[in-house]
Amino acid sequence: MITVLSGGVGGAKLALGLYHALPRGDLTAIVNTGDDFVHLGLPISPDVDTMLYTLADLNNEELGWGRRDETWTFMDVTASLGGADWFRLGDGDLALHVERARRLGRGETLSEVVAAVADAWGIHARILPMTDDRVATVVATKEHGVLPFQEYFVQHRCAPTVTQIAFEDGTTAAPAPGVVDALAGANVVVIAPSNPYLSVDPILAVPGLRTALERTNAPVVAVSPIVGGAAIKGPAAKIMGELGIEVSPAAVARHYDGLIDGFILDRLDNKLRDMITVPCLVTDTIMTSLADKERLARELLDFAADLPRKEREP
Amino acid sequence: MITVLSGGVGGAKLALGLYHALPRGDLTAIVNTGDDFVHLGLPISPDVDTMLYTLADLNNEELGWGRRDETWTFMDVTASLGGADWFRLGDGDLALHVERARRLGRGETLSEVVAAVADAWGIHARILPMTDDRVATVVATKEHGVLPFQEYFVQHRCAPTVTQIAFEDGTTAAPAPGVVDALAGANVVVIAPSNPYLSVDPILAVPGLRTALERTNAPVVAVSPIVGGAAIKGPAAKIMGELGIEVSPAAVARHYDGLIDGFILDRLDNKLRDMITVPCLVTDTIMTSLADKERLARELLDFAADLPRKEREP
Repeated sequence: MITVLSGGVGGAKLALGLYHALPRGDLTAIVNTGDDFVHLGLPISPDVDTMLYTLADLNNEELGWGRRDETWTFMDVTASLGGADWFRLGDGDLALHVERARRLGRGETLSEVVAAVADAWGIHARILPMTDDRVATVVATKEHGVLPFQEYFVQHRCAPTVTQIAFEDGTTAAPAPGVVDALAGANVVVIAPSNPYLSVDPILAVPGLRTALERTNAPVVAVSPIVGGAAIKGPAAKIMGELGIEVSPAAVARHYDGLIDGFILDRLDNKLRDMITVPCLVTDTIMTSLADKERLARELLDFAADLPRKEREP
Repeated sequence: MITVLSGGVGGAKLALGLYHALPRGDLTAIVNTGDDFVHLGLPISPDVDTMLYTLADLNNEELGWGRRDETWTFMDVTASLGGADWFRLGDGDLALHVERARRLGRGETLSEVVAAVADAWGIHARILPMTDDRVATVVATKEHGVLPFQEYFVQHRCAPTVTQIAFEDGTTAAPAPGVVDALAGANVVVIAPSNPYLSVDPILAVPGLRTALERTNAPVVAVSPIVGGAAIKGPAAKIMGELGIEVSPAAVARHYDGLIDGFILDRLDNKLRDMITVPCLVTDTIMTSLADKERLARELLDFAADLPRKEREP
């Protein structure tokens, strides 16, 4: 059983590689919900939805988000009504949000909704939201004060200077059902090449999850989202610069200090491996094709299997 | 000022004719909301929406309902999620329902929502839902017992035999703001060629509206939805047969006995004019083109102007 901690697109790529590399049913993805928000009255879970679309082979690779074969009539008409159109909701994507709203409205949890959708789309992995409670990532910026995540990320296109990142309601949330067990009972835990600050930290902010990760007997392996001094995708490098953190895989490995047993970095950063205190695998980490994803997943699993066994108190 | 009482498609055709025949701002449409229901968690107002689409020149004439240039991606994905797809919601249509849900959710009334949409789409008529409260048309059938309207109309395609029609919560609803004044203050009131039992009766069932119609000083003119022994559209003729009512314009005129001062029937039914006790206009009532609609509207207005003045107690 392999458990991967993931945000959206970058993490979902590795999750897809693991999904193809592993026997049916062996993958569990614990997905960030700190980006979740309500838009046009509909609850949206961007990272969970990206994971659903990716594993169901429905994701839009051209856009890098949303569904493939998407149409945009809803958005056009919403704009004609004076509605907010800064967050683009495709017509097919909307079906997921309407279905989620309907199910949450009758008392189901987000976990239950996601399980039902995954089942309807024939996904043979478990996709677990990190929590069924509200944990909202907020970004303190120099220019605009504190912004809800999607306003920072989509409306302001990550342009404002980040001074701090926080997780509202992070102290009262509980892990979603199955999440702690998926960490405790895993054979390998993977921290996907997602944004450490915006995608992985919210997961670790859910009370109990950092401890569960510290205590698992499984080897924990992180994959660097930073390659050659830049982020593969998204604002990770920009944020590291703004927070005064060196933009390097070594800084990412330090960020996960005490949590990880192994680290994977790109060949481009081979010279940095000696700055990392846990065992490293240096390989090609840019995942373009499905073959890239599956190869990295298999290398990761082999690497994890070869890591020294942890010594734990019983 | 002209006020028209209307259901969906048939009534909206005449309303569109009046809209073009009258000076800007002179038309008020009081629209049936007995068909309203909640679907996939979204509040839908089929007749109000048809009126909005028709007057905004956005209606789908091929389908006879919904928006033109519609796409159906939402419905396809909803079906893939196992969601109900018996009531087809187009992607553009959905924007109206999501916007209504959002506005109702923050405490606006249906009247306010409709006014905002009409304004956004540049409609220079007042479209008034008959009530902002719930009045639900239900259809008692021989085969399936009592059915909510949309289950009868869409899911069962009007196939079951109707034994009775009733309006749930019809005793506690209040007319929407402006509705009583639009009847009292009109120069002419028109009962559109909508289904008398399913579209006009729910309006008359809203407490106060039948009385307001009886008391208005304006001439009240109804247009027959029955032509040549059949309904122009929809189940009106079938229902009349099932309820033991003769399928004829004369029966429609009798249905409005005490309410109307004039009646318009089609040339095809010329021989029936002597069976009708109010003054009649016999003309072409089938509205195919916009020119047809506008011509009928102008004839109606001329006819109403020539009707004998009502004698009322002060």
